[in-house]
Amino acid sequence: MHGPIRIVLVNPTHPGNIGAAARAMKTMGLSRLHLVTPEHFPHADASARASGADDLLVNAAVCDNLEAALSGCALVFGASARHRRMEWPERTPRQAAEEAHGCIGEVAFVFGREHSGLTNQELAHCNALVHIPCDTEFSSLNLAAAVQVIAYELRLASLESPAAHDGVERPADAAAIERFHAHLEETLIAIGFLDPANPRKLMQRLRRLFGRVRLDDNEVNILRGVLTQVQKHLRR
Amino acid sequence: MHGPIRIVLVNPTHPGNIGAAARAMKTMGLSRLHLVTPEHFPHADASARASGADDLLVNAAVCDNLEAALSGCALVFGASARHRRMEWPERTPRQAAEEAHGCIGEVAFVFGREHSGLTNQELAHCNALVHIPCDTEFSSLNLAAAVQVIAYELRLASLESPAAHDGVERPADAAAIERFHAHLEETLIAIGFLDPANPRKLMQRLRRLFGRVRLDDNEVNILRGVLTQVQKHLRR
Repeated sequence: MHGPIRIVLVNPTHPGNIGAAARAMKTMGLSRLHLVTPEHFPHADASARASGADDLLVNAAVCDNLEAALSGCALVFGASARHRRMEWPERTPRQAAEEAHGCIGEVAFVFGREHSGLTNQELAHCNALVHIPCDTEFSSLNLAAAVQVIAYELRLASLESPAAHDGVERPADAAAIERFHAHLEETLIAIGFLDPANPRKLMQRLRRLFGRVRLDDNEVNILRGVLTQVQKHLRR
Repeated sequence: MHGPIRIVLVNPTHPGNIGAAARAMKTMGLSRLHLVTPEHFPHADASARASGADDLLVNAAVCDNLEAALSGCALVFGASARHRRMEWPERTPRQAAEEAHGCIGEVAFVFGREHSGLTNQELAHCNALVHIPCDTEFSSLNLAAAVQVIAYELRLASLESPAAHDGVERPADAAAIERFHAHLEETLIAIGFLDPANPRKLMQRLRRLFGRVRLDDNEVNILRGVLTQVQKHLRR
């Protein structure tokens, strides 16, 4: 399990973005927000956009410089919108989140100014850059949206990857499925939809269909109920 | 390679969220925005928050209902903040993005109202739900932030090597599926299996079943052929 993770916003211009970043963090289980020389803070726009994450704003550490905001951190990532002239180790958000998750010490993710990002001097405090793979023709990611993506990846890294759950409660067993197919075929013949002398590939196609769906017990009962009802009408 | 992907916002209250969603989409290379009965649109707040993604707002399709917004779609995911009483197939954002990437037809991701999400009736139009794994104690994800997470996963899926497609040749579009469900319901009433005065959740269960299976055109034709044949017998 990782140590605490902090989000550091360097010199944010719009207080609304601070609030939205706090909300993004809290939805993903993060709570430690550090602000380096914010233009306006505290501010009503920050509280409005925090929308229930006000506790992160109240507890935010406001710092005079980046060094102070990074105090005690063992691993620092810097969010970078574009490739730099300066070569620097770079991670995808997923790689960075996994590294952060595996780190025993405190970890910081640093986000730069809305319009100009981080300076080279600030980047030099980072162990690696994190690059969110934006469209090359429109890479103008909102500050809080960038925090949301990183916080989301951090949350995924902290959770075990859940297996796909298809909503099936009690999958029907193969024998029940066979009885359903037999019942279906019998009914299709009775209503004259399937000609046993010229079946083409009808039952095969229907088997493929119901094989994909993975019916549960309840669904088999519903479908067989329908078939029985159709048969009753034929006997009249 | 996947078909076009559209983002559908159902009845959004705050125009700022529409603009922020457009910006989130464009950063991740998505361009098709559909709006179902937005409270205020067009609106200055939408344009302000779009911040360079105004073209998506100009080209947004404004629809009177969800069916219209899903017209032509072969695969529909509904964003869901919480677990429902009724079980429905569920995907993680990553799983959904990979499925969308593997689908030959058009794909929609549907996002509900800011405060109340999607209704059960709206969810019934979705093949599966997508659940962004928020912190259980604070799951109040901003609408545009949710769009950002999904758009980010879609971009990752599009950057990875092409996915194996799911074997469905010509997935039926949403309108054909709706006509099938209407035909099914009509037939179930005619044979006395479904009591309109006491429908319980029968049609919802059948929608769930056929939503999971993702019918192709040919299969819809077979199933409707069966229904027509049953109806002929009733008229005799």
